[in-house]
Amino acid sequence: MSEKGEVRFIGIVESSGEPSKVKIFPEFCVGLKGLNNYSHIIILYWIHLRNNEEQRRTLQVVPKRHPGAPQVGVFASRSPSRPNPIGLCVAELTKIEDCTLLVRGLDAFEGSPIIDIKPYIPRADSISEARVPEWTNHGPPT
Amino acid sequence: MSEKGEVRFIGIVESSGEPSKVKIFPEFCVGLKGLNNYSHIIILYWIHLRNNEEQRRTLQVVPKRHPGAPQVGVFASRSPSRPNPIGLCVAELTKIEDCTLLVRGLDAFEGSPIIDIKPYIPRADSISEARVPEWTNHGPPT
Repeated sequence: MSEKGEVRFIGIVESSGEPSKVKIFPEFCVGLKGLNNYSHIIILYWIHLRNNEEQRRTLQVVPKRHPGAPQVGVFASRSPSRPNPIGLCVAELTKIEDCTLLVRGLDAFEGSPIIDIKPYIPRADSISEARVPEWTNHGPPT
Repeated sequence: MSEKGEVRFIGIVESSGEPSKVKIFPEFCVGLKGLNNYSHIIILYWIHLRNNEEQRRTLQVVPKRHPGAPQVGVFASRSPSRPNPIGLCVAELTKIEDCTLLVRGLDAFEGSPIIDIKPYIPRADSISEARVPEWTNHGPPT
């Protein structure tokens, strides 16, 4: 079996803020049908600024935005430096205008390619009591 | 800018069940440091059985495992047929043995390549009151 896969960009973060604007390319727009029935979505994006060998070979980090964090593996952190530069963010969907989503809470930079949009389903995705290490409680959520 | 990206497989679903065994390849194993401090993880996997043009060109589906579901866009469903065959599952991490994770609740088939592991952080990832369409309440969680 292959050891690699190809991802295709389906959209782009057109502007970053509150709200952010996520533009889905016209050829993928029919895939948004019914998305307006969800209040929250999971956005998978390509962390294009970290898509280089140095960042993709990074396997441990000290999460600097979290005071007191120890050195941890990238899979135990939400570091943007990781073998596959895929960012994941749960965002509030506030409006859909044609092929553009207005969302709140997106942590992606402007210009980041979008690779997937999934509906947020609490019964599958919400684990309010999940245990985390203490350092994740300080600084930004991710 | 490129319209595509390359994902590299960091592991594989060695066996599927309760628990499932997720083997991380030795060269990525140091990236797991500290993961044992989390009770839940987000697993991104490559839906290898849907990695073909027909499935990747699918933009609308009728979610057949959910009785009463209408035809919706793939981005408004968790359908495995989508432009990028990336599956996302929140799973309970029950044990780490060397480079193998034992997890509960993983919906990936045996043999699925793993592309990322992220810690589940309720403050970022848990939205218990998120609104969903009625049909998602019937059938499996995703």
